[in-house]
Amino acid sequence: MAEARIAVVGARGMVGAELRLVLLQRGHGEPLAFANASDCDGAEFSVAFLAVSAEAALALAPRLLAQGVRVVDCSSAFRERADVPLVVSEVNARDLAAASSARLVASPNCSATMLVLALSPLQAAFGIEHVSVATYQAVSGAGRAAVEALEAETRAQVDGMQPNASAFPQPCAFNVFPHESAIDEQSLCNEEEQKLVAESRRILGMPELPIDATCARVPVRRAHCQAVVVTLSSRASLEQVRAALQRAQGVSLHPDAGPDTASARNATARDDLLISRIRWAQSDLDKPEQDRRRVALWLACDQLRKGAALNAVQLAEAAGWI
Amino acid sequence: MAEARIAVVGARGMVGAELRLVLLQRGHGEPLAFANASDCDGAEFSVAFLAVSAEAALALAPRLLAQGVRVVDCSSAFRERADVPLVVSEVNARDLAAASSARLVASPNCSATMLVLALSPLQAAFGIEHVSVATYQAVSGAGRAAVEALEAETRAQVDGMQPNASAFPQPCAFNVFPHESAIDEQSLCNEEEQKLVAESRRILGMPELPIDATCARVPVRRAHCQAVVVTLSSRASLEQVRAALQRAQGVSLHPDAGPDTASARNATARDDLLISRIRWAQSDLDKPEQDRRRVALWLACDQLRKGAALNAVQLAEAAGWI
Repeated sequence: MAEARIAVVGARGMVGAELRLVLLQRGHGEPLAFANASDCDGAEFSVAFLAVSAEAALALAPRLLAQGVRVVDCSSAFRERADVPLVVSEVNARDLAAASSARLVASPNCSATMLVLALSPLQAAFGIEHVSVATYQAVSGAGRAAVEALEAETRAQVDGMQPNASAFPQPCAFNVFPHESAIDEQSLCNEEEQKLVAESRRILGMPELPIDATCARVPVRRAHCQAVVVTLSSRASLEQVRAALQRAQGVSLHPDAGPDTASARNATARDDLLISRIRWAQSDLDKPEQDRRRVALWLACDQLRKGAALNAVQLAEAAGWI
Repeated sequence: MAEARIAVVGARGMVGAELRLVLLQRGHGEPLAFANASDCDGAEFSVAFLAVSAEAALALAPRLLAQGVRVVDCSSAFRERADVPLVVSEVNARDLAAASSARLVASPNCSATMLVLALSPLQAAFGIEHVSVATYQAVSGAGRAAVEALEAETRAQVDGMQPNASAFPQPCAFNVFPHESAIDEQSLCNEEEQKLVAESRRILGMPELPIDATCARVPVRRAHCQAVVVTLSSRASLEQVRAALQRAQGVSLHPDAGPDTASARNATARDDLLISRIRWAQSDLDKPEQDRRRVALWLACDQLRKGAALNAVQLAEAAGWI
């Protein structure tokens, strides 16, 4: 459907800009670009990528759907809606096929996307029982203002000045702090941790998979890292684990150390998930080899690209919309 | 023993400079300062703090001991030696008292020090069975050249230039990567992870405590953070966990979010371990309250201060050497 007229809504944001770039790079041409949801009229296009707030997406998507537009939403607005497929293209494109009449599809949270890219091949090969993850999240997940704050604060600090008010609750330059999303009073988890758990479970089709997550911000422009420990359901050798990840789509294996190991910098502007440090969790080393089940992994992924824009475009491609 | 003549060896390094500062701040006066191990003669002083490489410490310490000097070593040279106490002052000062004739004491790895400060009160109150930790480590743990590299690389990058060769295997500015220490071919753990596990076990007196660690570098000048999940041996409420940590020495509790939450920046130049985000690990929330055992914590600690210099000085104080 090369004739699809494509729109990007929220085109001035970080994800919006990346969507335009990915669409161009993948041969879909220059999309119509709308800065705000209020500017756009579904009569002008047939497929829309929404890179706006959940609040704006909630208002805009029904209006576009009523005009016959197919919508890929990058916000959290529809990710928990059972009638809206939540899809990572390499992991559960089956959910998109199963909902072939769906005109709205949701692209997941960036941290969930990269985590399930690593978990899914292990789930398929060995089954998985438990996941523990600590994230190292770039500031661009919080939008353009956050990246500008990191730049401005960093500049001030290298010149020996105190940073001004930040886009975050505290300065982000040369700092690490828990993810700034709201803390749920019941669970004491922040919203990012809740999304990561709920969305990963849904995408993997394991609604009760035990996942422990801690999400934190690091002073990086783009690309998140994750330290993960996965408990497998069945016996596997480390070579089999490595082979399963090596075969997986959208994933590349990297050395455990040195200039080419998986890192925020090496993941930046790349399409795939970088994995290194595939090993047994240390406490499993005290067990006989046949009893080892807990695999540790180190992940790095560009959250603006596969974590947002690229996955959204891949979903529209998989659905045959573009 | 106000008359102790104190020396700092390796005085130009990051830990050496901090040792001088801490000694002054705690009323021990200006120490004799030696840049290199080869310059110093034990006849000139009665207590020495070694802030040199493990290799240099291995050569120097026996020479000083033979001259009757009491030695606190900040390197890894003696940390595994059964006849040398490895001590965090708030945690196992008993090991120092038990080795009252010891003339050499080792101060632990910075990551182990901060971890056991949080684990020890939980161990005492409830018992602990398993620990999982991911670290966010400042570059200053790698020495002054690393801090200078971070500054220079950051300056270059904010000016839109490519960073020059780094003190690390890849640029550290705006980047996150696995800890750069050597990878053990057998376990595939890096040296920092091995130290963290071995030293934490020894300090806690639990030689078989299962600990899973992933150590990574973040672009921060000083102060490490850690995302921790501890499995308790016996039933506890979250209020009891909080109370046990609140009572602990060298520890302060901080809000779960906002400007005062535990962070690298907020921990910098502070003496204590900052703890926030005391909560049940998410997967425990699906269990009945009486079955919950896995506590998640977020830690931040200045690794040059409590993680190195301050603890070393506290050890000499606890031993009655200064």
